[in-house]
Amino acid sequence: MAKESGIVFIGNKPPMSYVMAVITSLSASNAKEITLKARGRAITTAVDTAEITRSRFIKDLKVSKISIGTEEMPAREGENRARMVSTMEITLTKK
Amino acid sequence: MAKESGIVFIGNKPPMSYVMAVITSLSASNAKEITLKARGRAITTAVDTAEITRSRFIKDLKVSKISIGTEEMPAREGENRARMVSTMEITLTKK
Repeated sequence: MAKESGIVFIGNKPPMSYVMAVITSLSASNAKEITLKARGRAITTAVDTAEITRSRFIKDLKVSKISIGTEEMPAREGENRARMVSTMEITLTKK
Repeated sequence: MAKESGIVFIGNKPPMSYVMAVITSLSASNAKEITLKARGRAITTAVDTAEITRSRFIKDLKVSKISIGTEEMPAREGENRARMVSTMEITLTKK
């Protein structure tokens, strides 16, 4: 199996849904690495997901990289200009 | 003046309040570095604050460090156990 690094997109479900996705993804593949990607309000959920996975489930998981950025989102209906949204990526690596 | 690195605690005000605090703190002192600290839902605001300061106001500001963690909060009235809360620190450094 390829040693690809998985990506989990964090949305507005409770953190435990994403914790499960991370655990499943890491145990189903040979991947040693997984990246959580989040935008806006979901950033908090991404941090919760990383912390819960690390402290309660996969103890040898390490936060190897965190980056933040900004993305332009197209205007929603009724809005007349694009919004800037903060983004975050957290990479977790198995020791 | 001492070259201390300042700290801005992020709460639940709009990001612009903290952007102003960061700008004021960096220009009032000789500090080349400032750290944003946030817990729980305020984590998103911390990322917004860093991104807005960097992209709109102080262009030579760089994210030099990001760390995440967990803190135990004492139980609130009516709750019977402590809650775990995610934390985040973002350090911004002037080039």
